Amino acid sequence: MERVEQHASFGGRQEVWTRHSEVLGGATRFGVYLPPAALAGERCPVLYWLSGLTCTEQNFITKAGVQQHAAAHGLIVVAPDTSPRGPEVPDDPAYDLGQGAGFYLDATQAPWSTHFRMETHVVHELPAWIEAHFPASDRRAISGHSMGGHGALSLALRHPGRYASVSAFAPIVAPSQVPWGRKAFAAYLGDDPAAWAAHDTVALIAQAAERLPLLVDQGEADDFLGSQLRPELLQAACADAGHPLTLRLHPGHDHSYYFIASFIGEHVAWHARALAG
Amino acid sequence: MERVEQHASFGGRQEVWTRHSEVLGGATRFGVYLPPAALAGERCPVLYWLSGLTCTEQNFITKAGVQQHAAAHGLIVVAPDTSPRGPEVPDDPAYDLGQGAGFYLDATQAPWSTHFRMETHVVHELPAWIEAHFPASDRRAISGHSMGGHGALSLALRHPGRYASVSAFAPIVAPSQVPWGRKAFAAYLGDDPAAWAAHDTVALIAQAAERLPLLVDQGEADDFLGSQLRPELLQAACADAGHPLTLRLHPGHDHSYYFIASFIGEHVAWHARALAG
Repeated sequence: MERVEQHASFGGRQEVWTRHSEVLGGATRFGVYLPPAALAGERCPVLYWLSGLTCTEQNFITKAGVQQHAAAHGLIVVAPDTSPRGPEVPDDPAYDLGQGAGFYLDATQAPWSTHFRMETHVVHELPAWIEAHFPASDRRAISGHSMGGHGALSLALRHPGRYASVSAFAPIVAPSQVPWGRKAFAAYLGDDPAAWAAHDTVALIAQAAERLPLLVDQGEADDFLGSQLRPELLQAACADAGHPLTLRLHPGHDHSYYFIASFIGEHVAWHARALAG
Repeated sequence: MERVEQHASFGGRQEVWTRHSEVLGGATRFGVYLPPAALAGERCPVLYWLSGLTCTEQNFITKAGVQQHAAAHGLIVVAPDTSPRGPEVPDDPAYDLGQGAGFYLDATQAPWSTHFRMETHVVHELPAWIEAHFPASDRRAISGHSMGGHGALSLALRHPGRYASVSAFAPIVAPSQVPWGRKAFAAYLGDDPAAWAAHDTVALIAQAAERLPLLVDQGEADDFLGSQLRPELLQAACADAGHPLTLRLHPGHDHSYYFIASFIGEHVAWHARALAG
């Protein structure tokens, strides 16, 4: 495990590490923000952040302004890459498949299944690294944006008890029903409808084992709102199942990090309350 | 004048505009953050931000987290590019000369003198655009980072009365005495020592017409501290001249935007107090 960046930030430290991942079959990078409390030796809870299509570990740590809030609340923030990487890893020329587009699941179909195992990486391998090498407790929360919002919601629903809280910005809530999700699911999971449903937030809500409250922020000027994101499907599924959902629609806000930065402080506070509980 | 980006941000709007500059002899881009007060029609004071070597108008607006603070204090924030741009503009393969390295002065030497007139652009042309096309008052403040810290300090000293306040992050305070500055000044200004002194903050302090207080933040883990930045020269010059200086050295902080983000809120508050006065 090698540290490739470290920067003082709001009394804490933003770091970037690289390590060989058995699960992904190659080196992977992740950002770790250590708040002042962690630098002082306290074991802090951890917020995992999952980024969207085309992102690396860099986008969130450089653009979201999360460090100010993580410092104030004493949270470690971990930001993995969005897929396996490297010349030996399969890829696709499109931005929405292959490297940069892992969709936070374990692929079952060739050629993807050997490296594209982001679910096992994010849910198990990465937290094991974090909890062994940093002053982290085993209290975890998860959030993300767009494809990473799908990741946060679907992983929290698929692994009850693993996360104290979950939130998302502009998530793909029904990948089985929209072009981004259908393309990725067909490639990674084949044509089995049950496999698709097992990774689709709207489908998972109906049979959720725990009723973990969802916080979802969505910009009304988001270019992908009607075609790829469709928060009304999540709203209907939660209403049907009696699943607690706080869905906030924000006039004028788009799909960018300017939107995330405007509300990340409220998400960090939401997670901090749950992690302290 | 054409708007090329707009994003809702903290109740206001981050925009990017492009316009033909008579001064620079070509199209130039600049970021404008309009706080909620400006969107409500109030005329707001303007903070001009000057970025460092290799930057465009994008770095500060995407990474510094300034919008949160500008929204709270009702400041418009304008971030110009760091030089003229385009295929017709002279350039140099090095990162510290030519495009991306304008040093906020009007060059007198060929081939630079036809386009490299960033002082006139930043001090006169750009504010004229801003005050004509946006709900901006004629109250102005100026700040910047590294080469842009040199720009902010030297322009405020060269144009007494034009700025209500000035601050800088990790500024090049004595360009005449360090490699980055000597290379750029030789190319842009030739070998006249008086021309160099007229753009050198440490030299300007001795004969300043007004004693505008300086706020300077500097990271102690900055790789360029001893070779290029040398804040001790500014400290000595201000002590000799009786010029008010608040110089804060921050242990562990480097030259990155993580440093700027950690303290930009305090700079915005400093400027807001002066602009309200």
